[in-house]
Parts: sequence; structure tokens; C-alpha cells
Amino acid sequence: LNIAVLPGDGIGPEIIGQALRVTEAICEKFGHELSYEYGVVGATAIDQVGNPYPDGTHELCMSSDAVLFGAIGDPKYDNNPSAKVRPEQGLLAMRKKLGLYANIRPVSTFPSLIHKSPLRADLVDGADFMCIRELTGGLYFGRPQGRSEDGDTAYDTCVYTREEVERILHLSYKYARMRRKKVTVVDKANVLCTSRLWRQVAQEIEKQYPDVETEYMFVDNAAMQIIQWPKRFDVLVTENLFGDILTDEASVITGSLGMLPSASIGIHTSVFEPIHGSYPQAAGKNIANPLATILSAALMFEYAFDLHEEGALIRQAVAASMDAGVVTEDIASKDGEKHSTSEVGDWI
Amino acid sequence: LNIAVLPGDGIGPEIIGQALRVTEAICEKFGHELSYEYGVVGATAIDQVGNPYPDGTHELCMSSDAVLFGAIGDPKYDNNPSAKVRPEQGLLAMRKKLGLYANIRPVSTFPSLIHKSPLRADLVDGADFMCIRELTGGLYFGRPQGRSEDGDTAYDTCVYTREEVERILHLSYKYARMRRKKVTVVDKANVLCTSRLWRQVAQEIEKQYPDVETEYMFVDNAAMQIIQWPKRFDVLVTENLFGDILTDEASVITGSLGMLPSASIGIHTSVFEPIHGSYPQAAGKNIANPLATILSAALMFEYAFDLHEEGALIRQAVAASMDAGVVTEDIASKDGEKHSTSEVGDWI
Ligand SMILES: CC(C)[C@H](C(=O)O)[C@@H](O)C(=O)O
Ligand SMILES: CC(C)[C@H](C(=O)O)[C@@H](O)C(=O)O
Repeated sequence: LNIAVLPGDGIGPEIIGQALRVTEAICEKFGHELSYEYGVVGATAIDQVGNPYPDGTHELCMSSDAVLFGAIGDPKYDNNPSAKVRPEQGLLAMRKKLGLYANIRPVSTFPSLIHKSPLRADLVDGADFMCIRELTGGLYFGRPQGRSEDGDTAYDTCVYTREEVERILHLSYKYARMRRKKVTVVDKANVLCTSRLWRQVAQEIEKQYPDVETEYMFVDNAAMQIIQWPKRFDVLVTENLFGDILTDEASVITGSLGMLPSASIGIHTSVFEPIHGSYPQAAGKNIANPLATILSAALMFEYAFDLHEEGALIRQAVAASMDAGVVTEDIASKDGEKHSTSEVGDWI
Repeated sequence: LNIAVLPGDGIGPEIIGQALRVTEAICEKFGHELSYEYGVVGATAIDQVGNPYPDGTHELCMSSDAVLFGAIGDPKYDNNPSAKVRPEQGLLAMRKKLGLYANIRPVSTFPSLIHKSPLRADLVDGADFMCIRELTGGLYFGRPQGRSEDGDTAYDTCVYTREEVERILHLSYKYARMRRKKVTVVDKANVLCTSRLWRQVAQEIEKQYPDVETEYMFVDNAAMQIIQWPKRFDVLVTENLFGDILTDEASVITGSLGMLPSASIGIHTSVFEPIHGSYPQAAGKNIANPLATILSAALMFEYAFDLHEEGALIRQAVAASMDAGVVTEDIASKDGEKHSTSEVGDWI
């Protein structure tokens, strides 16, 4: 198993460190040969080489079977949205260059963390769905994008092609077949032309999956349903910008933001990362929760290497650490002990 | 007071009927002369004249000081997003032609309805903020919008001008000054050029309101904060599409969707309507909750006519009807009586 390791910024190096230890332990146990190499990305890469996604890192990713990714972002760029070089550009460049067309986020609840959910426990307990966000199209990458000559008018372009929509829909149905066999296609077809293409293509493709139920929902309604009735969803698929908003919304209803992994499926390779950010305030303190990153490693075994027993065992170990109360501050129970990042990694 | 009354589709006529009775009662009590005229809009207008926002209705609105609006939408159009003429087009045409640039939605909680909120009561109890959504720009109206010749590529355009951003920001600060003096500007300035214009203009304009606190937030983060910490918001202002999603999200956290009014401030006139939809299943049954529409009439007195005592009295009457348990099925307490739409109107 040949992986690229990109720790990134903030708590990235610490949480990646623990996920890597878990990956090594699993490889040892199951007799897989693991080789990995580090790459720089994000603010760290800007500081070192002036580019948030340097060519060297890209080549490393291209020659790897999977990428384990920490987090990027540094507060020094946050209040300067017009800085010429920004960490987010690295993220977008990486997505585009690796062809990471589908970002997959399982939304699952952990019984011991339900009380941290902002939702009423009965609504969210048992919610279990998967958000699939298109990641290389739409308003994020459409051109033209810019300003009028006098600077007083700005524009962005949203573009989708039939192929882009087909590709992610097929993937969604594939996952739905492994789950509860329901796909919710989220769009704004009552207003947007790109959404009407999505809906048209989906209406064609759903016929190829007669065993899967297909439902269509406008994005504003989806934003409500995710809160009101999260258990209704199985696989939710949508375009890039709607996905950005809805997946973040979905991630907080569980009360376990620090627990949620993600996979970005690519043409050239796939990237596995926690959905939480770089949490700069905690950097270097050995207090960050490594579980989302460790669970991202589990997704890596399953999605990149088709090694399901390995993934399941990691998940089991994570659940056991929670049962044993060996967890970091953010998810410790009121009277429970608070463990450090590395202690949690040790235990797992 | 010279108003246009557009009942629209579904439950529209019933709820508008009660709001109009309340408006009449208030005018009588305070000695205002009221004149009103009905106009058709939505599916009803398509059925009658083949156009969801006919010229006659537009002229009526243009010559009125305010528009009281019910709801539009009919299920027969819902699964046919490519129908040539659709009720939503009427809504968008009305917004554009009347220059309804700011949609204002107060998000407030009602103590007796907190238990209906999907959020934990402690998080939402006392939440009180105002969403201001830009309503005539952005991806909804930007051109070009269309398909490539082969039909396999679709595109939409998001456009904003400095004037559009300035106008709605000034309005937001004006309202913030009448409230808790905090404005949250929501954008996606780390990705979108139009958002960077929003942020640039906001950074200029905030200097003119040194007494108001300004905060900047990315839209994905806002989608989380609305659920996790709704009480942090006072005035939230954002562009059209983000506003569509976030205002709907915000409206369900209160547990009182049937209670929330809105105002769309225009260049030519302003429109007042409940935020809930046309609820076709309930049409004609005299069971729909008229309170959001009645509260929209309260906003009309305040925002269109600057008649604050009148607005306050309506709000007081609505609160009293709830205290007295004279409410419709959807908000009745478990053992409480269920009243009809018109009974609630009678009582108020
Ligand atoms: C940092 C930003 C560009 C990024 C996005 O909008 O895609 C982030 O919000 C995410 O969801 O990964
Ligand atoms: C019906 C639709 C066009 C409309 C919108 O997206 O603006 C609705 O969702 C709303 O929020 O008023």
C-alpha cells in the first residue's frame, strides 16, 4: 500500500501522526506492506515554497494509491480574502488536478455523543446517511470569473456537463445499493439551468437502477429536512456549492464533528481526510481529537484498497476507545478523564 | 392605505382572507382609510390567463403602497421542472419588476412552540434574529444562462454590482441599529469573485456604522452556526442563493414555520407574505394556520406605512390567541382544541 501523507496546517500533523500509527498497526496485523511519503500543502507549503499545492506534492499524490490528508488553513489568511496566495487555493488545485470529483461524507451518530447534538435526541439518534458532493465543477471552477474593468461588477460562472453529472450519479447509486437503496438528488431545478441538467440526467439514470428509490428535492427544502427529519436520508447527492453548505450542516447535527471522516474519490487517486478544520488554537498542544482522521484511514482501507476487514477493525477500535472513555477533551463525558491526542492513538 | 391583495394558490385565499380582516379591523380602530384590490398570481394566474404574473397584476402592484401576498405553487408543476410556464416564474418576475431587492425574515421563537423545534430547547429558546436576503441579483438573474447547442453543457451566471451590495448592506445596518447592533455578512469570499466584491464593499460600509459590530462568516460555517448557536445572530445579510438556503434552514429551528412572516422591500412597492408555502393538501379545508399571514400584515403596517402601534397591536393579538389556545391544528397543544382558519381570524 503506497500512500502519500499530507499533514497540512494547525493540528494536521498531530492527528495525521495518530492515523498513520493506526495504519501501520493494521498493515502489520494483516501483513500488508506499507510505504508512505510526506508532502507539504496549505499554509505550511506557502511558507516553505510559496505555493499551497506545490508540484512536488502533486507528483507524490499522482504516484500514490491513496492520500491521507490532515487539514489546511491558517488564521493569518482569514481576514484577507484577497491575498494573492491562499491555502484554500491549494485545496482547490489539488481537487482539480487529482480529479477528485466526489466528496463522500458518511453522517453517522455515536450513541455516547448524541447528547452533544444540537438536535433533539429522538430526531437524530440512529440517523445514518451519506452525503455525496460533486467536487470539481459548478461555481467553484466555472469560467469566466472576475471583475468588470471599473471593478464595480463581479461575476462567477456555474457550469456542469452531462458527463460530470452522470459520473457522480452512478457512484451515488453504487453506494446506495450497498446501503438502504435510496438516493435523494438535491438541486434548484426551479431556478437554475445547471440544476435542470442535473435533474434531466438523473431522471434518465434512475431508470438504470430500478431497485433503488430516487427522490428529488430542492436545496432549500433539503436544508430544512436535514434538521427536521435526518433519518429520511440514505444517500444525498448534490452539486459542489450546495454540497459545501449541506454537508457542513449535516455534520453538526450528529454532535460529533470531531468524529467525521471523508473520502474524495478521484480519477487519479483518492484523498481521505477528517471534515473538521485545522483548529489552529489547538495546534501543538496534543489535545486535538484524532478519531475523525483515524476513521478516515478506515475509509482509505475500504474505498482505496477494498480492504473491508481492515476498515471494520479500525472502526471497532475507535468505538472501543469511546466505550472505554479513552477520548480527548471535546468528547469526554462530564466526569470522564481527558486524554491527549497521542494517548488516544496509543490506546487504539 | 392602498394595498394590492394577491391570494395566489393553495391555502393562499384562506389565509389572506383572515389577514385582510385583521387589516380592516386595525384600520377601523385607528381611523385609517383602507382601499384594496385583488390580483391573480401563480398557478391560478396561469390557469386563468396563461401567465403567472400578468401585466394587470403588475400594474395593480405598481399603483399600490403595499402588496399582501398569500402563497404560490401547485403540485401539478412540481415534477415537471421543464414545463414552459411555471408558477415560480411569476414570483421571480414579480421580484425583478417590482425591484424587491431585500427579503426580510424575522426569526423569532414562541415560548409555547419551542417544544416543536427540532433543536434542543436551551439552544433555541430566546433566539431572535433577522435574515436579510438579496432578492433580485446573483445566480437567480445573472445572464447568460442556458445550454450548449448539443444540450450536454449547462451554465448559469452569478453577477453582483457594487450598488446592489451597498443598497442591501445599508438596509441591514439600518435594521441592526434598531436591534442589537450586530451585522453578520455571509459569503464565500474564499472561493467566489462575487463574494469578494460583497466582502470588499462591506469592509468599506462598516466604517460608516462604527456603532454596529460587523462579523464576516463563510456560508458553510453559517449553515452550522444557525443550528449550533442561533442566539449569536442579530442581523444576518447575504446574497440571493445563500439566502434561499439559510433562511429556510433558520425558519425551521424555531418550530414555528407556520408563524413566520416576511417582508420584501422594493424600489416600487413592498410585498408582505408568510414564508410557508401554498400547502395544497390543506387548500379549501379551512384548517391552514393564518398567523404567519396575519403577522405579515403587521410587518406591512410597520415597514410600508411606518405605523408601529398598529403592527404591535396585531402582534399582541396573535400572542393572545396563542395564550388562549385559539390556534389551528398544527400548533395546538396535545390536549388543546383545534380551531379552524376562520375561527382563529374571528378571535383575533
Ligand atoms: C476551504 C474551502 C475552499 C472548502 C470548500 O468550500 O470546498 C471547504 O469549505 C470545504 O468544504 O472543504
Ligand atoms: C420558489 C422559489 C423560486 C423561491 C426561491 O428560490 O426564491 C422560494 O424558494 C423562496 O425562497 O421564495
